[in-house]
Amino acid sequence: MIYAFIKKGSFQDSVSLMIISRKLSEHPQVEQVSVMMGTPANKSMLESTGFWHDDFTGATPNDICVAVRTDHADPAIVELICEQLEKELNAIASASGNSHQLPKARRWESACQKLPQANLLLVSVAGEYAADVARQGLEAGKNVMMFSDNVPLEQEVALKTFARERGLLVMGPDCGTAMIAGAPLAFANVLPSGDIGVIGASGTGIQEVTSQIALHGQGISHAIGLGGRDLSAEVGGISALSALEMLAADEQTRAIAFVSKPPSPLVRERIIGAMQQIDKPVVALFLGSRPEHRREGNVWLAHSLSDAAGLAVLLARVAEQKRTLPAVAGKTICGLYAGGTLAAEAAMLLTDRLSLTLNPHHPDGVMLESGGHRVVDLGDDSYTLGRPHPMIDPTTRSIEIAKLAQQPESGVLLLDVVLGYGACADPAGAVAEAVRLVQQARGAQSPLAAIATLTGTDADPQGRAAQADILRAAGIAVAETLEEAIQLAVELITPQPGGASVTHPALLDGVQVINAGLRSFALDLQSSGTPVVHYQWAPIAGGNAHLAGLLKQLH
Amino acid sequence: MIYAFIKKGSFQDSVSLMIISRKLSEHPQVEQVSVMMGTPANKSMLESTGFWHDDFTGATPNDICVAVRTDHADPAIVELICEQLEKELNAIASASGNSHQLPKARRWESACQKLPQANLLLVSVAGEYAADVARQGLEAGKNVMMFSDNVPLEQEVALKTFARERGLLVMGPDCGTAMIAGAPLAFANVLPSGDIGVIGASGTGIQEVTSQIALHGQGISHAIGLGGRDLSAEVGGISALSALEMLAADEQTRAIAFVSKPPSPLVRERIIGAMQQIDKPVVALFLGSRPEHRREGNVWLAHSLSDAAGLAVLLARVAEQKRTLPAVAGKTICGLYAGGTLAAEAAMLLTDRLSLTLNPHHPDGVMLESGGHRVVDLGDDSYTLGRPHPMIDPTTRSIEIAKLAQQPESGVLLLDVVLGYGACADPAGAVAEAVRLVQQARGAQSPLAAIATLTGTDADPQGRAAQADILRAAGIAVAETLEEAIQLAVELITPQPGGASVTHPALLDGVQVINAGLRSFALDLQSSGTPVVHYQWAPIAGGNAHLAGLLKQLH
Repeated sequence: MIYAFIKKGSFQDSVSLMIISRKLSEHPQVEQVSVMMGTPANKSMLESTGFWHDDFTGATPNDICVAVRTDHADPAIVELICEQLEKELNAIASASGNSHQLPKARRWESACQKLPQANLLLVSVAGEYAADVARQGLEAGKNVMMFSDNVPLEQEVALKTFARERGLLVMGPDCGTAMIAGAPLAFANVLPSGDIGVIGASGTGIQEVTSQIALHGQGISHAIGLGGRDLSAEVGGISALSALEMLAADEQTRAIAFVSKPPSPLVRERIIGAMQQIDKPVVALFLGSRPEHRREGNVWLAHSLSDAAGLAVLLARVAEQKRTLPAVAGKTICGLYAGGTLAAEAAMLLTDRLSLTLNPHHPDGVMLESGGHRVVDLGDDSYTLGRPHPMIDPTTRSIEIAKLAQQPESGVLLLDVVLGYGACADPAGAVAEAVRLVQQARGAQSPLAAIATLTGTDADPQGRAAQADILRAAGIAVAETLEEAIQLAVELITPQPGGASVTHPALLDGVQVINAGLRSFALDLQSSGTPVVHYQWAPIAGGNAHLAGLLKQLH
Repeated sequence: MIYAFIKKGSFQDSVSLMIISRKLSEHPQVEQVSVMMGTPANKSMLESTGFWHDDFTGATPNDICVAVRTDHADPAIVELICEQLEKELNAIASASGNSHQLPKARRWESACQKLPQANLLLVSVAGEYAADVARQGLEAGKNVMMFSDNVPLEQEVALKTFARERGLLVMGPDCGTAMIAGAPLAFANVLPSGDIGVIGASGTGIQEVTSQIALHGQGISHAIGLGGRDLSAEVGGISALSALEMLAADEQTRAIAFVSKPPSPLVRERIIGAMQQIDKPVVALFLGSRPEHRREGNVWLAHSLSDAAGLAVLLARVAEQKRTLPAVAGKTICGLYAGGTLAAEAAMLLTDRLSLTLNPHHPDGVMLESGGHRVVDLGDDSYTLGRPHPMIDPTTRSIEIAKLAQQPESGVLLLDVVLGYGACADPAGAVAEAVRLVQQARGAQSPLAAIATLTGTDADPQGRAAQADILRAAGIAVAETLEEAIQLAVELITPQPGGASVTHPALLDGVQVINAGLRSFALDLQSSGTPVVHYQWAPIAGGNAHLAGLLKQLH
């Protein structure tokens, strides 16, 4: 049986009420207690879930509706539950009073006045009101993040179209998480600052990819949410395009990771097209689709969340190292390896990346000779007959490196530095000296970028970290894997399209937030040092839609 | 022009002479100096490379042949070079004298007497003598590692066949590196001890895979070399099979990584078959071949050296965690996720691994329901209508976990723990308590293994590491990625073939080495604390093959 009562004129956010519902349901004499604001949507839910009571008919969206389901036919239970409800509401009010002077405003205009530089409105009010609140923000020139769900699709399309025409971004509806310039928005993780920008149509997708990136020791520039429907045929990826443009123009972002369910085919084409216009590497994960290729131009197709994170980390590392190396676009790559297997894998990876022809046979240790590129195994018999192996004695390789002085068409030198017992006491030092000499001989007009991988551990006699330091001090990039070395080499020789001149997105310099809905989001922003004002939104005209419409027209 | 001289009766190893060659070649008056022992192979090389001088005709393998190529027609150069050679030889002799009392023996028998527990002979003498030295070791019941190259193929087949019949292992010829129970053999890296056993037909392949494993923070049990020809049709993978059997029987090894060039088709079949008999996961990298599948039973096919290392690390982590969880073979998997995207990816990965059917639609958040397995997104509307999202409030999930008490067919519970602002203050604690209660309700007869992934960072309010500790303390396995969680779940429910009872390979308990050839290998072993005696091998009967054969028959 259902007992019911209404608490008039006491608006609370949905999360607070849900938590109260759960607490009240623990009472031994009840089966379940439902506590909700009397919005039309909630009323119909109370009906469909068997909690309806005729007393709710007159309830407005500013009234709390409490339904008590119990087997005990004892009306006194209402009194008990009512008492407990008051206690919980008081607890919220006193917590609110203690909330470090969170700036609050009851009216939109005063919220705007309290935070005149506000550039983002965070909306988490009930779905049926969210679009109106969001539009108010857009009309005031503010970007919008809509945490609210159950927003009608046509409202989403209208808001996003309106926003894009004005150069504004709408994240959501149903956008669970975002992080702009360090500010945690809604369900956000505290992420290290870094080079990787993330865009996602999935909340936990963004959270998992960014967490994995943090586990890899890399950081995030911004994480922009889109809402789950943005890449549908109806919405057409409007916010995805805006987000891509913003990260493309953001100096801090060096690589972009994009996560969503598979978009509709037309939208996919549009999004991939936009990604390929960007002068940065992009990782795209279309969850649940199996990518046929690993790469479409600068767009890398991941097959899982951790794969997407791993790729983004690799590409960000490459982008970072690229900046330290000379420009050699249009030149060729020369790999001079002491390790036979390392030479073979470098040749294979280069062949894949540049669509070259791999030598089936390896005369004189030449593993690859195609398109002007060349990878040689200097441990081949033709180099070691009567001479020590280049892992023991660096002379053979130093001689080969010196020959690059007469090969101005070469632009990148790939090398391995193999450590351990038996190997040369300071292979990095020998390589550094040889590279210095050849760079000197070629002169500033003919730069040569050198990229090394290290094989060995910190416990080796030479010490991996110490050898890496020697290489870096000589201006030689140190890649963690051969894949990273090859990607860096290929990016260096690939001519870059001149990035279109783009306006720097001011939002990414830092956010100031008006928060409408869940108070806890404002408190989280405040505790992270983000300027915020909590807009104590409540349904206009007691939630009477007709009256609210009239009032709106009077403004 | 070539000047030449011979230094009689002074045997030196090839590496020492190569380094001397390079040093003497730095003399301003010479073009190049070649310094070699007068073996038949070296003599023919001197001829083919234009360093021949008729004085070399009478040189034996115990004589040093020095050829000086110069433009200066001045015989005095011979005297200068001869003087410098003496200096270098003296330097070697005095370094040898200072070599921390390296135990040495001139005769095989005395080497064996000096180290009666020797179980490995490391051979790095010139290729034409290596097989004879190796056979001597095998006949004395010792395993053999042949660093020497240029050993005829038929000798390799004969040695390996002889060894396998006696339960002995031959690594090589041309085996550049190995590490047995911590002992670095030849070109070995100093590796952290751990669970992953590595087998390789490529020296730098082993070195790079083991280094990458170390970079991932995992360790190596043993690294066994095979030599580059072991997987050819002629040799048939004899040593590969022995190595696989040894690591299969080794308790410390929980996952195996195997690196080689693509074997001949018949050998590939034999090797993959042997791998599939092993009660442990195996990663196989056949360099340069593009694997069509990711997995053939317990055998994972890698596509690069770093991919092989990454897979081995994942599988070793899974094997380690498996030991801490109850046995639930034959049961089903239940995934109860708070994050929608995490649920979707878990469902997709499980579908792939178990060849299930993925639900195209997701009624009530059920992402997968096939083969008795089930993955649910508890953030679906059907769970959150009027109730807080499970990321905010753990109650919904705790109720679903409790239902597993009535589902004894379920054996594995998969969970996500999502951290960050907005999320529950202690999601791990709630999960730990719910798991404890359901395990108690099911009783010891019906164990339930729980596996969680964490989404979030250490900087999050809940703290990733702290939440992981809470989970582990409750007996819940913590996987780093969803891939790892799914692999662990699948291994737990998969009935394991009863491993054939195998003899524990004594060699893997620790090596004691007789070193024949490069003295530096003995010094490296000594410095790593491995018992070693340096067998100062020199060609028998001055290298006269006929006389040596006669002498052998007299023994």
